[in-house]
Amino acid sequence: MNLNYIKAHEWKIVEEGFNKEHITASESIFSIGNGAMGQRANFEEYYSGDTFQGSYIGGIYYPDKTRVGWWKNGYPEYFAKVLNAPNWIGIGVNINGKTLDLNTCKVIDFSRELDMRNGVLTRSFIAEFEDGDIVKVQASRFLSRDIQEVGAIKYSISPINFEGEIEFNPYIDAGIINEDSNYDEFFWEILDQKQTGDEAYIVSKTLKTGFHVCTGMKVELVLNDYNIDIEKKVSSTDKSISYSYATKVNSGDTFTIIKYGGYTQGMNHPDAELQNFSKQQLNKAADLGYEVLLEKQQNAWNQIWDTADIVISGDIKAQQAIRFNIFQLNQTYSGEDSRLNIGPKGFTGEKYGGSTYWDTEAYCIPFYMSTKDKNIAKNLLIYRYNQLDKAIENAEKLGFKNGAALYPMVTMNGEECHNEWEITFEEIHRNGAMVYAIYNYVHYTGDFDYVVSHGMEVIIAIARFWSQRATFSADKEQFVILGVTGPNEYENNVNNNWYTNYLAKWCIEYALENLDILKDDYPEEYLRMAGKVNLDETEMVTWAKVSDQMYFPYSKKYDVFLQQDGFLDKELIPVDQLEKSERPINQKWSWDRILRSPYIKQADVLQGFYFFENLFDQESIQKHFDFYEPLTVHESSLSPCVHSILAAKINRIDKAYEMYLRTSRLDLDDYNHEVHEGLHITSMAGTWLSIVQGFGGMRNFNDQLSFDPKIPKNWKSYSFKIKYRDHVIKVFKNHDGCKFYNESDTPLNITVSGKEVTIFNKDLVIL
Amino acid sequence: MNLNYIKAHEWKIVEEGFNKEHITASESIFSIGNGAMGQRANFEEYYSGDTFQGSYIGGIYYPDKTRVGWWKNGYPEYFAKVLNAPNWIGIGVNINGKTLDLNTCKVIDFSRELDMRNGVLTRSFIAEFEDGDIVKVQASRFLSRDIQEVGAIKYSISPINFEGEIEFNPYIDAGIINEDSNYDEFFWEILDQKQTGDEAYIVSKTLKTGFHVCTGMKVELVLNDYNIDIEKKVSSTDKSISYSYATKVNSGDTFTIIKYGGYTQGMNHPDAELQNFSKQQLNKAADLGYEVLLEKQQNAWNQIWDTADIVISGDIKAQQAIRFNIFQLNQTYSGEDSRLNIGPKGFTGEKYGGSTYWDTEAYCIPFYMSTKDKNIAKNLLIYRYNQLDKAIENAEKLGFKNGAALYPMVTMNGEECHNEWEITFEEIHRNGAMVYAIYNYVHYTGDFDYVVSHGMEVIIAIARFWSQRATFSADKEQFVILGVTGPNEYENNVNNNWYTNYLAKWCIEYALENLDILKDDYPEEYLRMAGKVNLDETEMVTWAKVSDQMYFPYSKKYDVFLQQDGFLDKELIPVDQLEKSERPINQKWSWDRILRSPYIKQADVLQGFYFFENLFDQESIQKHFDFYEPLTVHESSLSPCVHSILAAKINRIDKAYEMYLRTSRLDLDDYNHEVHEGLHITSMAGTWLSIVQGFGGMRNFNDQLSFDPKIPKNWKSYSFKIKYRDHVIKVFKNHDGCKFYNESDTPLNITVSGKEVTIFNKDLVIL
Repeated sequence: MNLNYIKAHEWKIVEEGFNKEHITASESIFSIGNGAMGQRANFEEYYSGDTFQGSYIGGIYYPDKTRVGWWKNGYPEYFAKVLNAPNWIGIGVNINGKTLDLNTCKVIDFSRELDMRNGVLTRSFIAEFEDGDIVKVQASRFLSRDIQEVGAIKYSISPINFEGEIEFNPYIDAGIINEDSNYDEFFWEILDQKQTGDEAYIVSKTLKTGFHVCTGMKVELVLNDYNIDIEKKVSSTDKSISYSYATKVNSGDTFTIIKYGGYTQGMNHPDAELQNFSKQQLNKAADLGYEVLLEKQQNAWNQIWDTADIVISGDIKAQQAIRFNIFQLNQTYSGEDSRLNIGPKGFTGEKYGGSTYWDTEAYCIPFYMSTKDKNIAKNLLIYRYNQLDKAIENAEKLGFKNGAALYPMVTMNGEECHNEWEITFEEIHRNGAMVYAIYNYVHYTGDFDYVVSHGMEVIIAIARFWSQRATFSADKEQFVILGVTGPNEYENNVNNNWYTNYLAKWCIEYALENLDILKDDYPEEYLRMAGKVNLDETEMVTWAKVSDQMYFPYSKKYDVFLQQDGFLDKELIPVDQLEKSERPINQKWSWDRILRSPYIKQADVLQGFYFFENLFDQESIQKHFDFYEPLTVHESSLSPCVHSILAAKINRIDKAYEMYLRTSRLDLDDYNHEVHEGLHITSMAGTWLSIVQGFGGMRNFNDQLSFDPKIPKNWKSYSFKIKYRDHVIKVFKNHDGCKFYNESDTPLNITVSGKEVTIFNKDLVIL
Repeated sequence: MNLNYIKAHEWKIVEEGFNKEHITASESIFSIGNGAMGQRANFEEYYSGDTFQGSYIGGIYYPDKTRVGWWKNGYPEYFAKVLNAPNWIGIGVNINGKTLDLNTCKVIDFSRELDMRNGVLTRSFIAEFEDGDIVKVQASRFLSRDIQEVGAIKYSISPINFEGEIEFNPYIDAGIINEDSNYDEFFWEILDQKQTGDEAYIVSKTLKTGFHVCTGMKVELVLNDYNIDIEKKVSSTDKSISYSYATKVNSGDTFTIIKYGGYTQGMNHPDAELQNFSKQQLNKAADLGYEVLLEKQQNAWNQIWDTADIVISGDIKAQQAIRFNIFQLNQTYSGEDSRLNIGPKGFTGEKYGGSTYWDTEAYCIPFYMSTKDKNIAKNLLIYRYNQLDKAIENAEKLGFKNGAALYPMVTMNGEECHNEWEITFEEIHRNGAMVYAIYNYVHYTGDFDYVVSHGMEVIIAIARFWSQRATFSADKEQFVILGVTGPNEYENNVNNNWYTNYLAKWCIEYALENLDILKDDYPEEYLRMAGKVNLDETEMVTWAKVSDQMYFPYSKKYDVFLQQDGFLDKELIPVDQLEKSERPINQKWSWDRILRSPYIKQADVLQGFYFFENLFDQESIQKHFDFYEPLTVHESSLSPCVHSILAAKINRIDKAYEMYLRTSRLDLDDYNHEVHEGLHITSMAGTWLSIVQGFGGMRNFNDQLSFDPKIPKNWKSYSFKIKYRDHVIKVFKNHDGCKFYNESDTPLNITVSGKEVTIFNKDLVIL
């Protein structure tokens, strides 16, 4: 079944009614984060049913020993795991000695809301115990964007039909495990505990990586709007501290606990000072008080929405979805810390280990580049620049030489760290995405200095890699690239994946082109750089030979490039002729059957057409779309957005809209039956792209910003803003036409549907 | 380094001098076994250095949870492990309170001998302690072929330069682990312990599989040839029982312990009776006494050698090697128990889990068929027949229908059980080997009744598999087989592996051919069988279509079949142009580099030419040999024998000899740097083949036994015997010619080098 229980709302994600089967899915969907930390929407109170507990801190990971059957040379030694961090949200609740547990109580009027405009999660319900006692609960929670090391919870209980005792047991618990641990190991060592007043602290350290974290809590009790003092009882284990606050209540009373909690960590403070800083931050929050902190939260989010919002009129599900995507991206990464990156599941789950994938370069950079200050995209490029040495080391391990670099498929610190050789050894296309991101950034921002100061070194190391990785086929008398996996991971160890070959050729050409520019225009910088990387002018001759003689698999019959050699040997039965019961094939078919099928997990050839659309004509794009789209099952979250953008490009607006819904509501409607594992954060940037580049038709080829706005027929209008160099441009489209508003102080030349237009500063152009 | 310390000897494996770096290798090489159990040549006394403890019981395994990064549909759930069984050989030794430990003592005059003619392992050494005490030790050990549940040890110590106390601590220890456990789990549960007199027993049970085993020991003490009684001290843990026997000795005395030990197990006795049976067997052995038991051991081995021996004159290393191979095969599998099979490492190590591979069908059956009663080969076929239902189930899991069977790549009980999907999903060629073995057996023995009673069902199920597994390529207008790995495991997920396609076609044709015979000659049996397997006459039309239109990759330029599609895109640099430091490539190169290289781990196309040599002409065999042999690294033990046989066939006797040495001395000279992990038992059958089928040129195509004897130039002569139907034929070859002696009572027509010859009963033919 597809889960499809989320209620439509322009600004909120809403769940109504209590369904135990939705718990783990909702824990993902209602996740909250503030860029520095994030957590799944686990209940504060005890829940004995199926739940997936998760709270994560940006940058804190563990190198979990790789799980393979038989080791082979070059396998990564560990799989970096985003670590489930100590629980600070827990609040046990006892009513007249009975544990409040929604798995055993009768639950009435349950509702949950994620208020995206303000960044707050709320939950309310009425629970009836077996003995007839009924309580009403209201809970709100947010992770502060102002004090990034703090979150706040307000949790209120009202007895409906009884008088008696309510007991809160707020706790912090460092005895947490990872669901996806390879060997069921415990990843944390507890160093210190401290109880003081209504505060408690646990300092713990990750094993192996030695990240120090202080988890703290500070609580306040409120009875019917008045703060009260209650003598607490303490119970603690070697891994947790729990306080007990009990009071007598009458029917109609409301007993509230306000809990501030969060983490301070060694990447930001001296290890020895973590508890002091934690105390400082919690008290700063408590001094402001819950309501003031909440107001600041709303302001912070309003600022984000001011530039990032996309407004869709006439389609509430589409509206809700795009805001959900933008909201989650901003919860995951705030761009202030160049040591952090964007994990595929952000702070919402453990799969993919919270590590950095090529998703960042291919999907996320354009989003952050257009909605934030350009330094944020640059930070993401510098993250890779700083890891260049490790990428060279990684290539050396695989037998490459002379400064060739292979960026890892998955990384936390620059080292390759994944469980599957099929991925790490073969998905070398990610190396091309590193160069593409530089190209994309430089052309969007105009900041060629980045190539001069940093980018060129990366580009050279990658050109070296491709020239060595290609093999001259005496049979074809061309260069081939053997034994790869393209973006379509439903193939393995294929020869001449078109996308990979194309990127390889392009990377080399881009390297040669930039080297020419540097040599001519930045002669001193050129010499410095050439010396640093031991550039040998003759090696460029070899590169050029490889790029000039690169082989591309092609079918004369269909007049399309083939995804790889031998693709036409497959039984090319379109996806829509498969029984519904057979899909998703990754859950219904054995892996070998998937591999020999023609089905495409994720845009592969079309990904290349998307990146380099300017190098192909409309007819060719159309032919390739018609050949590959019917075979694509989109079982990767990164797929539908690319198809949506290309469909819009070739005026298949219905198809573009179908794909848009699929990418934008992937998690809300759980298309791939896996939302319980966490959200698909990086692909959310693709959703943004499918509006801005898809329907909006925004392009920036040859340093010329252009648009070609189109609109799905059931939308009344949509609008978005982008930052472009020194400009902020607002784009509005409805069925009558489109409007461009230049918020900035200088005019900008753009093209709209092929026509050149100047929008003057603070001016509106209506077309 | 290649280990190369084994001394040449016609009948013995000899190690002289003590080298700690050889310990684990020698533990493998000097392994002993009796078909029912076997053990590595671990020292009886304590050894604190690097050692790999192993003792194994035929049929006792554990389903160790598979270790994969990310689970995909169809992955095997467990990897069946041959289990390290409780240690019964242990004898701690203390000299004046000091532990005898060759890792800390100074060791003089160390020597170890495996007497293959008699099936006995002996060891002698002089050890000097730090304080100057010197002892001389003599130890002998064998696993009885007469009382298969018992082994015996005679361990003697003589003080050389001191008087004092010698203490023996014989023990049994069920607290053992597997070196290759996936999750470091303990696989045994201890059920019961018993001490009585000089005997001790531990009954334990494997977890999950519930195999019950009683491990027992019984000891006798001897001082200078006289049995003595010594009051024992007992110490035991929850997993072990240890006795202590101490006595005063003078310089010149010899203190000896005789220890009988071994296992009784639930596959052969009621679980509740295991201890009784163990006691019975140990006492039976002790009543006979060590010397009588040893004499029986010698007789049993002499009987085996009588038919199995191969005598090589003029090349002592070759002679030693072939006997080592024959000896180990007979130690591993005696053929009496149809529930057992032949693990790639026999009882000498843990890798490959002691499970059954296609090695049995492709290599071992011909050996056992020619050197033993035909029922033994038949037992091996019936082992697979009994697992047909599981093979059908296995195919169903992967999406196949209508009774198609895919035999597991690796199995203990008929279920697929391996760690690597690359192997289980893709190496489907093993299915062909099942049919080939039936064909081979039927033609060698003339026992067509086996096809009628059992074989046909297996053949049909496999024909069904191939017809479903092949895909019609609209592009090629032929049937292709996508996504496989051939015998050459240095490729992965290739299309149209020639060997696989050829076997598929052949299997279908063989099925159709046999169905015709059954229909005509065994109409009742045909009907019974057709009903049982729901044979639908129209399905045969589909099969025939697939086999008739099967595609084979071929190069016009080289006039050879290609190992797989795209093979010519590789850089075809011969192995001999690789630097020595780069080999073995599986230890020097990363896995991806191996995959895209042209290097062949194991005969692949040539394996097909070997199986179906009669279907190709000499010129074609030569061309393929010349194309593939230079690219073959033989990093699988199963490879050189096939090349040796084909080289002999095309009169490259030097090459055949080089390959023969490589296969026959693979473990003795440790070609692949891995003998410490255990011996390559199944490939030893290939070594036998490379003499009998290689130099001897024995073939049996079209039910005609033929020979074409050739001899390496440095050999003076060689001879071997084979059982063929009702005959025993002895073949002798030297540089003057060859002789055939028919030991049986009826004449036999054979062809020798193309000429028909009749050898009459009890007659010798000299050619």
